Amino acid sequence: MSRYAYVAGRYLPQAEAAVPIEDRGYQFADGVYEVIAVEDGRLIDAGPHLKRLDRSLNELRIPRPMGDRALGIVLRRVVALNRVRRGMVYLQISRGVAPRDHAFPREVQPQLVVTAKRLTLQPPHLVEAGVRVVTIPDLRWARCDIKSIALLPNVMGKQAAREAGAYEAWQIDRDGNVTEGTSSNAWIVTAGGSLVTRPAGNEILNGITRTVVLELVRELGLAFEQRAFSTAEALAAREAFLTSTTSHVLAVTRIDDMPVGDGVPGAFTKALRQRYLAHLAAGSGR
Amino acid sequence: MSRYAYVAGRYLPQAEAAVPIEDRGYQFADGVYEVIAVEDGRLIDAGPHLKRLDRSLNELRIPRPMGDRALGIVLRRVVALNRVRRGMVYLQISRGVAPRDHAFPREVQPQLVVTAKRLTLQPPHLVEAGVRVVTIPDLRWARCDIKSIALLPNVMGKQAAREAGAYEAWQIDRDGNVTEGTSSNAWIVTAGGSLVTRPAGNEILNGITRTVVLELVRELGLAFEQRAFSTAEALAAREAFLTSTTSHVLAVTRIDDMPVGDGVPGAFTKALRQRYLAHLAAGSGR
Repeated sequence: MSRYAYVAGRYLPQAEAAVPIEDRGYQFADGVYEVIAVEDGRLIDAGPHLKRLDRSLNELRIPRPMGDRALGIVLRRVVALNRVRRGMVYLQISRGVAPRDHAFPREVQPQLVVTAKRLTLQPPHLVEAGVRVVTIPDLRWARCDIKSIALLPNVMGKQAAREAGAYEAWQIDRDGNVTEGTSSNAWIVTAGGSLVTRPAGNEILNGITRTVVLELVRELGLAFEQRAFSTAEALAAREAFLTSTTSHVLAVTRIDDMPVGDGVPGAFTKALRQRYLAHLAAGSGR
Repeated sequence: MSRYAYVAGRYLPQAEAAVPIEDRGYQFADGVYEVIAVEDGRLIDAGPHLKRLDRSLNELRIPRPMGDRALGIVLRRVVALNRVRRGMVYLQISRGVAPRDHAFPREVQPQLVVTAKRLTLQPPHLVEAGVRVVTIPDLRWARCDIKSIALLPNVMGKQAAREAGAYEAWQIDRDGNVTEGTSSNAWIVTAGGSLVTRPAGNEILNGITRTVVLELVRELGLAFEQRAFSTAEALAAREAFLTSTTSHVLAVTRIDDMPVGDGVPGAFTKALRQRYLAHLAAGSGR
Protein backbone atom coordinates (compact mmCIF):
# COMPACT_ATOMS: atom_id res chain seq x y z
CA MET A 1 0.00 0.00 0.00
CA SER A 2 1.06 3.63 -0.45
CA ARG A 3 2.19 5.41 2.65
CA TYR A 4 0.99 8.85 3.66
CA ALA A 5 2.74 11.68 5.42
CA TYR A 6 1.70 15.00 6.89
CA VAL A 7 3.83 17.88 5.67
CA ALA A 8 3.23 21.63 5.39
CA GLY A 9 -0.37 21.25 6.52
CA ARG A 10 -1.33 18.51 4.07
CA TYR A 11 -1.70 14.75 4.02
CA LEU A 12 0.23 13.50 1.00
CA PRO A 13 1.45 10.22 -0.45
CA GLN A 14 4.83 9.88 1.20
CA ALA A 15 6.58 9.62 -2.17
CA GLU A 16 5.44 13.22 -2.85
CA ALA A 17 6.20 14.55 0.61
CA ALA A 18 9.07 17.01 0.47
CA VAL A 19 10.44 20.01 2.31
CA PRO A 20 12.04 23.13 0.84
CA ILE A 21 15.83 22.99 0.67
CA GLU A 22 15.96 26.01 2.98
CA ASP A 23 14.07 24.25 5.74
CA ARG A 24 16.37 24.79 8.72
CA GLY A 25 15.99 21.15 9.61
CA TYR A 26 17.89 20.35 6.41
CA GLN A 27 20.59 23.01 6.57
CA PHE A 28 21.19 23.33 10.34
CA ALA A 29 19.65 20.29 12.11
CA ASP A 30 17.52 22.99 13.73
CA GLY A 31 14.64 20.82 14.89
CA VAL A 32 13.39 18.11 17.21
CA TYR A 33 11.52 14.83 16.89
CA GLU A 34 9.60 12.12 18.71
CA VAL A 35 8.85 8.47 17.97
CA ILE A 36 5.65 7.12 19.52
CA ALA A 37 4.73 3.45 19.56
CA VAL A 38 1.39 2.33 18.15
CA GLU A 39 -0.39 -0.74 19.52
CA ASP A 40 -3.78 -1.83 18.27
CA GLY A 41 -3.90 1.45 16.37
CA ARG A 42 -3.51 3.55 19.53
CA LEU A 43 -0.65 5.85 20.51
CA ILE A 44 1.25 4.54 23.54
CA ASP A 45 2.29 7.08 26.20
CA ALA A 46 1.42 9.99 23.92
CA GLY A 47 1.14 12.29 26.95
CA PRO A 48 4.76 11.88 28.13
CA HIS A 49 6.04 12.02 24.55
CA LEU A 50 4.27 15.31 23.85
CA LYS A 51 5.45 16.70 27.18
CA ARG A 52 9.04 15.84 26.27
CA LEU A 53 8.48 17.36 22.82
CA ASP A 54 7.43 20.58 24.53
CA ARG A 55 10.57 20.53 26.63
CA SER A 56 12.82 20.04 23.57
CA LEU A 57 11.05 22.85 21.72
CA ASN A 58 11.33 25.15 24.71
CA GLU A 59 15.05 24.50 25.09
CA LEU A 60 15.57 25.48 21.44
CA ARG A 61 12.93 28.24 21.58
CA ILE A 62 11.01 26.79 18.65
CA PRO A 63 7.32 27.67 18.93
CA ARG A 64 4.82 24.83 18.80
CA PRO A 65 3.17 24.63 15.39
CA MET A 66 -0.13 23.63 17.05
CA GLY A 67 -1.57 22.61 20.40
CA ASP A 68 -1.63 19.09 21.85
CA ARG A 69 -5.19 18.47 20.74
CA ALA A 70 -4.56 19.41 17.11
CA LEU A 71 -1.25 17.56 17.10
CA GLY A 72 -2.97 14.47 18.47
CA ILE A 73 -5.49 14.65 15.64
CA VAL A 74 -2.73 14.82 13.02
CA LEU A 75 -0.79 11.95 14.60
CA ARG A 76 -3.89 9.72 14.74
CA ARG A 77 -4.88 10.64 11.20
CA VAL A 78 -1.46 9.66 9.86
CA VAL A 79 -1.62 6.39 11.80
CA ALA A 80 -5.07 5.71 10.35
CA LEU A 81 -4.12 6.67 6.77
CA ASN A 82 -1.22 4.23 6.94
CA ARG A 83 -3.44 1.56 8.54
CA VAL A 84 -0.90 1.03 11.29
CA ARG A 85 -2.14 -1.32 14.01
CA ARG A 86 1.29 -2.07 15.45
CA GLY A 87 4.16 0.20 14.65
CA MET A 88 5.22 3.75 15.24
CA VAL A 89 4.43 7.32 14.38
CA TYR A 90 7.31 9.74 13.78
CA LEU A 91 7.02 13.48 14.12
CA GLN A 92 9.60 16.13 13.41
CA ILE A 93 9.36 19.87 13.97
CA SER A 94 11.92 22.25 12.50
CA ARG A 95 12.24 25.96 13.17
CA GLY A 96 10.98 26.60 9.66
CA VAL A 97 11.99 27.74 6.21
CA ALA A 98 14.11 30.86 5.79
CA PRO A 99 17.12 32.14 3.85
CA ARG A 100 20.22 30.46 5.27
CA ASP A 101 21.60 32.34 8.27
CA HIS A 102 22.66 30.68 11.52
CA ALA A 103 20.71 32.92 13.92
CA PHE A 104 16.94 32.54 14.28
CA PRO A 105 14.96 34.08 11.42
CA ARG A 106 12.69 36.91 12.51
CA GLU A 107 9.51 35.62 10.94
CA VAL A 108 9.24 31.94 10.43
CA GLN A 109 6.64 29.22 10.89
CA PRO A 110 7.73 25.95 12.51
CA GLN A 111 7.33 23.02 10.14
CA LEU A 112 5.71 19.77 11.24
CA VAL A 113 6.28 16.48 9.41
CA VAL A 114 4.57 13.27 10.48
CA THR A 115 5.00 9.74 9.14
CA ALA A 116 3.88 6.36 10.41
CA LYS A 117 4.86 2.82 9.66
CA ARG A 118 4.13 -0.73 10.65
CA LEU A 119 6.68 -2.53 12.74
CA THR A 120 6.80 -6.07 13.88
CA LEU A 121 8.05 -6.91 17.34
CA GLN A 122 11.69 -7.91 17.62
CA PRO A 123 12.46 -11.29 16.10
CA PRO A 124 11.96 -13.94 18.84
CA HIS A 125 15.60 -15.03 18.66
CA LEU A 126 16.73 -11.54 19.75
CA VAL A 127 14.40 -11.64 22.72
CA GLU A 128 15.39 -15.19 23.63
CA ALA A 129 19.14 -14.86 23.19
CA GLY A 130 19.56 -11.21 24.07
CA VAL A 131 21.62 -8.80 21.98
CA ARG A 132 25.24 -7.75 21.72
CA VAL A 133 26.44 -4.21 22.26
CA VAL A 134 29.82 -2.65 21.57
CA THR A 135 31.26 0.32 23.43
CA ILE A 136 32.38 3.47 21.63
CA PRO A 137 33.52 6.90 22.83
CA ASP A 138 30.65 9.33 23.39
CA LEU A 139 31.41 12.10 20.89
CA ARG A 140 28.10 13.92 21.18
CA TRP A 141 27.39 17.49 22.22
CA ALA A 142 26.68 18.64 25.76
CA ARG A 143 22.87 18.76 25.42
CA CYS A 144 21.85 15.18 24.72
CA ASP A 145 18.76 15.82 26.86
CA ILE A 146 17.26 17.69 23.88
CA LYS A 147 15.73 15.27 21.37
CA SER A 148 17.17 17.13 18.39
CA ILE A 149 17.61 15.90 14.85
CA ALA A 150 21.37 16.60 15.05
CA LEU A 151 21.83 12.82 15.10
CA LEU A 152 25.04 12.45 13.10
CA PRO A 153 27.08 11.02 16.03
CA ASN A 154 24.27 8.54 16.71
CA VAL A 155 24.30 7.52 13.04
CA MET A 156 28.05 6.87 13.13
CA GLY A 157 27.72 4.98 16.41
CA LYS A 158 24.89 2.77 15.20
CA GLN A 159 26.85 2.01 12.05
CA ALA A 160 29.87 1.00 14.17
CA ALA A 161 27.58 -1.37 16.07
CA ARG A 162 26.18 -2.87 12.89
CA GLU A 163 29.63 -3.44 11.42
CA ALA A 164 30.68 -5.19 14.63
CA GLY A 165 27.65 -7.45 14.32
CA ALA A 166 26.06 -5.79 17.35
CA TYR A 167 22.56 -4.48 17.92
CA GLU A 168 23.57 -1.25 19.60
CA ALA A 169 26.59 0.80 20.67
CA TRP A 170 26.90 2.01 24.24
CA GLN A 171 28.60 5.37 24.40
CA ILE A 172 31.33 5.91 26.99
CA ASP A 173 32.02 9.32 28.52
CA ARG A 174 35.42 10.77 29.45
CA ASP A 175 35.20 9.19 32.89
CA GLY A 176 34.77 5.71 31.43
CA ASN A 177 31.07 5.54 32.25
CA VAL A 178 28.26 4.47 29.97
CA THR A 179 25.99 7.33 28.97
CA GLU A 180 23.46 5.50 26.77
CA GLY A 181 23.00 3.71 23.47
CA THR A 182 22.70 5.58 20.19
CA SER A 183 18.91 5.19 20.29
CA SER A 184 18.22 3.50 23.64
CA ASN A 185 18.95 3.81 27.37
CA ALA A 186 21.36 1.46 29.16
CA TRP A 187 20.73 -0.52 32.36
CA ILE A 188 22.43 -3.12 34.49
CA VAL A 189 21.45 -5.33 37.42
CA THR A 190 24.39 -5.55 39.81
CA ALA A 191 25.64 -8.76 41.37
CA GLY A 192 23.89 -7.53 44.50
CA GLY A 193 20.58 -7.41 42.63
CA SER A 194 20.20 -3.63 42.35
CA LEU A 195 19.00 -2.07 39.14
CA VAL A 196 21.24 0.77 37.95
CA THR A 197 20.72 3.33 35.21
CA ARG A 198 22.25 6.71 34.60
CA PRO A 199 20.25 9.63 36.02
CA ALA A 200 18.51 11.95 33.59
CA GLY A 201 20.86 14.88 32.94
CA ASN A 202 22.36 16.71 30.00
CA GLU A 203 24.33 13.60 29.01
CA ILE A 204 21.39 11.39 28.06
CA LEU A 205 18.02 11.54 26.43
CA ASN A 206 15.49 10.72 29.10
CA GLY A 207 13.65 7.91 27.31
CA ILE A 208 9.91 7.60 27.79
CA THR A 209 10.39 3.83 28.01
CA ARG A 210 13.09 4.55 30.61
CA THR A 211 10.67 6.54 32.77
CA VAL A 212 7.92 3.93 32.37
CA VAL A 213 10.33 1.15 33.36
CA LEU A 214 11.41 3.14 36.42
CA GLU A 215 7.74 3.41 37.41
CA LEU A 216 7.25 -0.32 36.93
CA VAL A 217 10.33 -0.97 39.06
CA ARG A 218 8.91 1.23 41.80
CA GLU A 219 5.55 -0.57 41.63
CA LEU A 220 7.34 -3.90 41.93
CA GLY A 221 9.20 -2.61 44.98
CA LEU A 222 12.58 -3.49 43.48
CA ALA A 223 15.87 -1.88 44.52
CA PHE A 224 17.24 0.63 42.06
CA GLU A 225 19.80 3.40 41.86
CA GLN A 226 20.13 6.18 39.32
CA ARG A 227 23.88 6.65 38.94
CA ALA A 228 26.59 6.33 36.33
CA PHE A 229 28.19 2.91 35.78
CA SER A 230 31.33 1.85 33.91
CA THR A 231 31.86 -0.76 31.20
CA ALA A 232 33.75 -2.88 33.74
CA GLU A 233 30.79 -2.70 36.13
CA ALA A 234 28.44 -3.69 33.31
CA LEU A 235 30.62 -6.68 32.49
CA ALA A 236 30.63 -7.72 36.15
CA ALA A 237 26.85 -7.28 36.37
CA ARG A 238 24.36 -10.09 36.71
CA GLU A 239 22.20 -8.72 33.89
CA ALA A 240 22.16 -5.85 31.44
CA PHE A 241 19.45 -4.55 29.16
CA LEU A 242 18.42 -1.63 27.01
CA THR A 243 15.15 0.24 26.62
CA SER A 244 13.59 2.24 23.81
CA THR A 245 10.21 2.92 22.25
CA THR A 246 10.78 0.35 19.52
CA SER A 247 12.99 -2.18 21.39
CA HIS A 248 10.91 -2.14 24.59
CA VAL A 249 13.04 -3.96 27.21
CA LEU A 250 15.73 -6.04 25.52
CA ALA A 251 18.39 -8.15 27.26
CA VAL A 252 22.04 -7.29 26.56
CA THR A 253 24.00 -10.51 26.88
CA ARG A 254 27.36 -9.54 25.41
CA ILE A 255 29.35 -6.32 25.67
CA ASP A 256 32.40 -6.01 23.40
CA ASP A 257 32.17 -9.77 22.87
CA MET A 258 32.35 -10.60 26.56
CA PRO A 259 29.35 -12.22 28.24
CA VAL A 260 27.23 -10.39 30.81
CA GLY A 261 26.39 -12.74 33.71
CA ASP A 262 25.53 -16.16 32.34
CA GLY A 263 25.39 -14.77 28.81
CA VAL A 264 21.63 -15.29 28.63
CA PRO A 265 18.73 -12.96 29.46
CA GLY A 266 18.25 -12.80 33.24
CA ALA A 267 15.17 -13.10 35.40
CA PHE A 268 15.00 -9.40 36.25
CA THR A 269 15.12 -8.39 32.58
CA LYS A 270 12.52 -10.96 31.58
CA ALA A 271 10.17 -9.88 34.35
CA LEU A 272 10.51 -6.21 33.41
CA ARG A 273 9.96 -7.02 29.76
CA GLN A 274 6.74 -8.82 30.59
CA ARG A 275 5.57 -5.92 32.75
CA TYR A 276 6.41 -3.51 29.95
CA LEU A 277 4.50 -5.55 27.37
CA ALA A 278 1.54 -5.52 29.78
CA HIS A 279 1.88 -1.72 29.96
CA LEU A 280 1.74 -1.57 26.14
CA ALA A 281 -1.30 -3.82 26.10
CA ALA A 282 -3.04 -1.66 28.72
CA GLY A 283 -2.16 1.50 26.79
CA SER A 284 -3.62 0.05 23.65
CA GLY A 285 -6.91 -0.51 25.45
CA ARG A 286 -6.65 -4.27 25.30
CA MET B 1 14.93 37.97 -10.06
CA SER B 2 14.05 34.34 -9.37
CA ARG B 3 16.77 32.29 -7.81
CA TYR B 4 17.78 28.85 -9.06
CA ALA B 5 19.02 25.81 -7.22
CA TYR B 6 20.46 22.46 -8.21
CA VAL B 7 18.69 19.57 -6.54
CA ALA B 8 18.32 15.89 -7.47
CA GLY B 9 20.09 16.40 -10.77
CA ARG B 10 18.04 19.36 -11.96
CA TYR B 11 18.30 23.13 -12.04
CA LEU B 12 15.05 24.47 -10.61
CA PRO B 13 13.59 27.76 -9.46
CA GLN B 14 14.59 27.79 -5.80
CA ALA B 15 10.98 28.18 -4.71
CA GLU B 16 10.30 24.72 -6.18
CA ALA B 17 13.49 23.10 -4.91
CA ALA B 18 12.67 20.49 -2.30
CA VAL B 19 14.05 17.29 -0.83
CA PRO B 20 12.12 14.19 0.24
CA ILE B 21 11.25 14.11 3.93
CA GLU B 22 13.32 10.93 4.28
CA ASP B 23 16.48 12.60 3.04
CA ARG B 24 18.93 11.72 5.80
CA GLY B 25 20.10 15.31 5.86
CA TYR B 26 16.66 16.22 7.18
CA GLN B 27 16.15 13.40 9.68
CA PHE B 28 19.71 12.77 10.91
CA ALA B 29 21.91 15.75 9.96
CA ASP B 30 23.75 13.08 7.97
CA GLY B 31 25.54 15.33 5.52
CA VAL B 32 28.21 17.93 4.90
CA TYR B 33 28.44 21.32 3.25
CA GLU B 34 30.74 24.02 1.89
CA VAL B 35 30.38 27.74 1.28
CA ILE B 36 32.58 29.17 -1.47
CA ALA B 37 32.99 32.87 -2.12
CA VAL B 38 32.32 34.30 -5.57
CA GLU B 39 34.17 37.36 -6.82
CA ASP B 40 33.66 38.73 -10.31
CA GLY B 41 31.61 35.63 -11.01
CA ARG B 42 34.50 33.27 -10.20
CA LEU B 43 34.80 30.75 -7.38
CA ILE B 44 37.49 31.70 -4.88
CA ASP B 45 39.75 28.93 -3.55
CA ALA B 46 37.51 26.25 -5.03
CA GLY B 47 40.39 23.74 -4.91
CA PRO B 48 40.91 23.86 -1.13
CA HIS B 49 37.14 23.91 -0.54
CA LEU B 50 36.59 20.78 -2.63
CA LYS B 51 39.56 19.11 -0.96
CA ARG B 52 38.03 19.81 2.45
CA LEU B 53 34.68 18.58 1.17
CA ASP B 54 36.36 15.30 0.22
CA ARG B 55 37.83 15.02 3.69
CA SER B 56 34.44 15.59 5.37
CA LEU B 57 32.79 13.03 3.09
CA ASN B 58 35.55 10.50 3.75
CA GLU B 59 35.25 10.91 7.51
CA LEU B 60 31.52 10.16 7.27
CA ARG B 61 31.99 7.56 4.51
CA ILE B 62 29.56 9.33 2.22
CA PRO B 63 30.47 8.65 -1.43
CA ARG B 64 30.97 11.64 -3.69
CA PRO B 65 27.96 12.19 -5.93
CA MET B 66 30.26 13.25 -8.78
CA GLY B 67 33.88 14.13 -9.49
CA ASP B 68 35.51 17.52 -9.04
CA ARG B 69 35.12 18.45 -12.68
CA ALA B 70 31.39 17.72 -12.80
CA LEU B 71 30.87 19.36 -9.42
CA GLY B 72 32.71 22.45 -10.62
CA ILE B 73 30.39 22.63 -13.63
CA VAL B 74 27.30 22.46 -11.41
CA LEU B 75 28.66 25.11 -9.04
CA ARG B 76 29.50 27.51 -11.87
CA ARG B 77 26.17 26.88 -13.56
CA VAL B 78 24.26 27.75 -10.37
CA VAL B 79 26.40 30.87 -9.94
CA ALA B 80 25.65 31.87 -13.54
CA LEU B 81 21.92 31.11 -13.34
CA ASN B 82 21.70 33.35 -10.29
CA ARG B 83 23.83 36.02 -11.97
CA VAL B 84 26.09 36.22 -8.96
CA ARG B 85 29.12 38.43 -9.52
CA ARG B 86 29.96 38.88 -5.84
CA GLY B 87 28.49 36.50 -3.33
CA MET B 88 28.66 32.87 -2.45
CA VAL B 89 27.75 29.42 -3.63
CA TYR B 90 26.48 26.89 -1.08
CA LEU B 91 26.66 23.15 -1.57
CA GLN B 92 25.32 20.41 0.63
CA ILE B 93 25.69 16.65 0.25
CA SER B 94 23.63 14.25 2.31
CA ARG B 95 24.00 10.50 2.50
CA GLY B 96 20.76 10.17 0.56
CA VAL B 97 17.12 9.22 0.83
CA ALA B 98 16.11 6.02 2.63
CA PRO B 99 13.57 4.71 5.13
CA ARG B 100 14.49 6.10 8.55
CA ASP B 101 17.07 3.93 10.32
CA HIS B 102 20.17 5.27 12.07
CA ALA B 103 22.75 2.99 10.42
CA PHE B 104 23.83 3.57 6.82
CA PRO B 105 21.29 2.36 4.23
CA ARG B 106 22.62 -0.40 2.02
CA GLU B 107 21.75 1.18 -1.30
CA VAL B 108 21.52 4.90 -1.40
CA GLN B 109 22.62 7.72 -3.66
CA PRO B 110 24.20 10.79 -2.08
CA GLN B 111 22.13 13.92 -2.67
CA LEU B 112 23.68 17.17 -3.84
CA VAL B 113 21.99 20.53 -3.37
CA VAL B 114 23.56 23.76 -4.62
CA THR B 115 22.37 27.34 -4.19
CA ALA B 116 24.02 30.69 -4.82
CA LYS B 117 23.31 34.21 -3.74
CA ARG B 118 24.62 37.70 -4.03
CA LEU B 119 26.31 39.20 -1.01
CA THR B 120 27.63 42.65 -0.44
CA LEU B 121 30.83 43.17 1.47
CA GLN B 122 30.49 43.93 5.15
CA PRO B 123 29.06 47.36 5.89
CA PRO B 124 31.99 49.81 6.08
CA HIS B 125 31.18 50.70 9.69
CA LEU B 126 31.84 47.08 10.75
CA VAL B 127 35.21 47.10 9.02
CA GLU B 128 36.12 50.51 10.41
CA ALA B 129 34.95 50.00 13.99
CA GLY B 130 35.51 46.25 14.28
CA VAL B 131 32.96 43.89 15.76
CA ARG B 132 31.96 42.65 19.18
CA VAL B 133 32.05 39.01 20.21
CA VAL B 134 30.66 37.31 23.29
CA THR B 135 32.03 34.14 24.84
CA ILE B 136 29.88 31.06 25.37
CA PRO B 137 30.65 27.49 26.47
CA ASP B 138 31.57 25.22 23.58
CA LEU B 139 28.81 22.58 23.68
CA ARG B 140 29.62 20.94 20.36
CA TRP B 141 30.57 17.37 19.59
CA ALA B 142 34.09 16.00 19.47
CA ARG B 143 34.46 16.12 15.66
CA CYS B 144 34.18 19.80 14.78
CA ASP B 145 36.81 19.21 12.09
CA ILE B 146 34.06 17.65 9.94
CA LYS B 147 32.03 20.33 8.18
CA SER B 148 28.72 18.60 8.90
CA ILE B 149 25.24 20.05 8.76
CA ALA B 150 24.69 19.13 12.44
CA LEU B 151 24.87 22.86 13.18
CA LEU B 152 22.35 23.18 15.99
CA PRO B 153 24.94 24.27 18.62
CA ASN B 154 26.27 26.85 16.17
CA VAL B 155 22.73 28.13 15.60
CA MET B 156 22.14 28.54 19.33
CA GLY B 157 25.54 30.21 19.76
CA LYS B 158 25.01 32.67 16.90
CA GLN B 159 21.60 33.54 18.30
CA ALA B 160 23.17 34.21 21.72
CA ALA B 161 25.60 36.57 20.00
CA ARG B 162 22.84 38.38 18.15
CA GLU B 163 20.79 38.85 21.30
CA ALA B 164 23.85 40.27 23.04
CA GLY B 165 24.25 42.73 20.18
CA ALA B 166 27.40 40.97 19.06
CA TYR B 167 28.54 39.82 15.63
CA GLU B 168 29.82 36.43 16.70
CA ALA B 169 30.18 34.13 19.70
CA TRP B 170 33.56 32.66 20.59
CA GLN B 171 33.19 29.20 22.04
CA ILE B 172 35.19 28.31 25.14
CA ASP B 173 36.35 24.76 25.86
CA ARG B 174 36.55 23.06 29.28
CA ASP B 175 40.05 24.40 29.80
CA GLY B 176 38.91 27.99 29.36
CA ASN B 177 40.40 28.31 25.88
CA VAL B 178 38.77 29.72 22.78
CA THR B 179 38.04 27.07 20.15
CA GLU B 180 36.47 29.22 17.42
CA GLY B 181 33.42 31.27 16.50
CA THR B 182 30.14 29.65 15.47
CA SER B 183 30.97 30.24 11.80
CA SER B 184 34.49 31.72 11.85
CA ASN B 185 37.98 31.11 13.23
CA ALA B 186 39.44 33.19 16.08
CA TRP B 187 42.81 34.96 16.20
CA ILE B 188 44.75 37.31 18.44
CA VAL B 189 47.93 39.34 18.17
CA THR B 190 49.74 39.23 21.51
CA ALA B 191 51.21 42.24 23.25
CA GLY B 192 54.55 40.88 22.01
CA GLY B 193 53.33 41.10 18.41
CA SER B 194 52.90 37.40 17.72
CA LEU B 195 49.88 36.12 15.85
CA VAL B 196 48.11 33.26 17.63
CA THR B 197 45.38 30.93 16.42
CA ARG B 198 44.31 27.51 17.56
CA PRO B 199 45.89 24.62 15.65
CA ALA B 200 43.68 22.58 13.35
CA GLY B 201 42.43 19.59 15.33
CA ASN B 202 39.16 17.88 16.13
CA GLU B 203 38.01 20.93 18.11
CA ILE B 204 37.77 23.38 15.20
CA LEU B 205 36.77 23.53 11.60
CA ASN B 206 39.91 24.32 9.66
CA GLY B 207 38.67 27.35 7.73
CA ILE B 208 39.87 27.84 4.17
CA THR B 209 40.22 31.55 4.94
CA ARG B 210 42.21 30.50 8.02
CA THR B 211 44.67 28.49 5.91
CA VAL B 212 44.95 31.29 3.32
CA VAL B 213 45.64 33.86 6.05
CA LEU B 214 48.32 31.59 7.54
CA GLU B 215 49.95 31.46 4.10
CA LEU B 216 49.80 35.24 3.80
CA VAL B 217 51.35 35.56 7.26
CA ARG B 218 54.19 33.27 6.20
CA GLU B 219 54.73 35.26 3.04
CA LEU B 220 54.89 38.45 5.07
CA GLY B 221 57.45 36.83 7.37
CA LEU B 222 55.41 37.63 10.46
CA ALA B 223 55.72 35.75 13.75
CA PHE B 224 52.90 33.34 14.47
CA GLU B 225 52.05 30.44 16.75
CA GLN B 226 49.36 27.83 16.39
CA ARG B 227 48.24 27.17 19.97
CA ALA B 228 45.19 27.52 22.18
CA PHE B 229 44.57 30.88 23.89
CA SER B 230 42.22 31.87 26.70
CA THR B 231 39.62 34.62 26.90
CA ALA B 232 41.89 36.45 29.38
CA GLU B 233 44.77 36.27 26.90
CA ALA B 234 42.50 37.58 24.15
CA LEU B 235 41.46 40.51 26.36
CA ALA B 236 45.11 41.26 27.12
CA ALA B 237 46.00 41.03 23.43
CA ARG B 238 46.97 43.96 21.23
CA GLU B 239 44.52 42.93 18.51
CA ALA B 240 41.96 40.26 17.80
CA PHE B 241 40.16 39.28 14.64
CA LEU B 242 38.06 36.59 13.02
CA THR B 243 38.19 34.96 9.61
CA SER B 244 35.60 33.25 7.43
CA THR B 245 34.65 32.88 3.79
CA THR B 246 32.02 35.61 4.03
CA SER B 247 33.59 37.86 6.72
CA HIS B 248 37.12 37.71 5.28
CA VAL B 249 39.39 39.21 7.96
CA LEU B 250 37.37 41.25 10.44
CA ALA B 251 38.70 43.06 13.51
CA VAL B 252 37.28 42.04 16.90
CA THR B 253 37.41 45.11 19.09
CA ARG B 254 35.30 44.04 22.07
CA ILE B 255 35.00 40.70 23.84
CA ASP B 256 32.18 40.38 26.38
CA ASP B 257 31.92 44.18 26.34
CA MET B 258 35.54 44.72 27.24
CA PRO B 259 37.86 46.39 24.73
CA VAL B 260 40.67 44.52 22.99
CA GLY B 261 43.80 46.71 22.87
CA ASP B 262 42.81 50.26 22.02
CA GLY B 263 39.30 49.13 21.13
CA VAL B 264 39.85 49.89 17.45
CA PRO B 265 41.09 47.68 14.59
CA GLY B 266 44.86 47.28 14.80
CA ALA B 267 47.58 47.63 12.19
CA PHE B 268 48.22 43.89 11.91
CA THR B 269 44.54 43.13 11.29
CA LYS B 270 44.19 45.92 8.75
CA ALA B 271 47.27 44.77 6.87
CA LEU B 272 46.07 41.16 6.77
CA ARG B 273 42.64 42.26 5.63
CA GLN B 274 44.18 44.19 2.74
CA ARG B 275 46.32 41.21 1.78
CA TYR B 276 43.30 38.96 1.92
CA LEU B 277 41.25 41.30 -0.27
CA ALA B 278 44.14 41.26 -2.73
CA HIS B 279 44.03 37.46 -2.64
CA LEU B 280 40.32 37.59 -3.49
CA ALA B 281 40.97 40.00 -6.32
CA ALA B 282 43.73 37.76 -7.68
CA GLY B 283 41.49 34.70 -7.40
CA SER B 284 38.77 36.46 -9.31
CA GLY B 285 41.19 37.08 -12.15
CA ARG B 286 41.22 40.83 -11.68
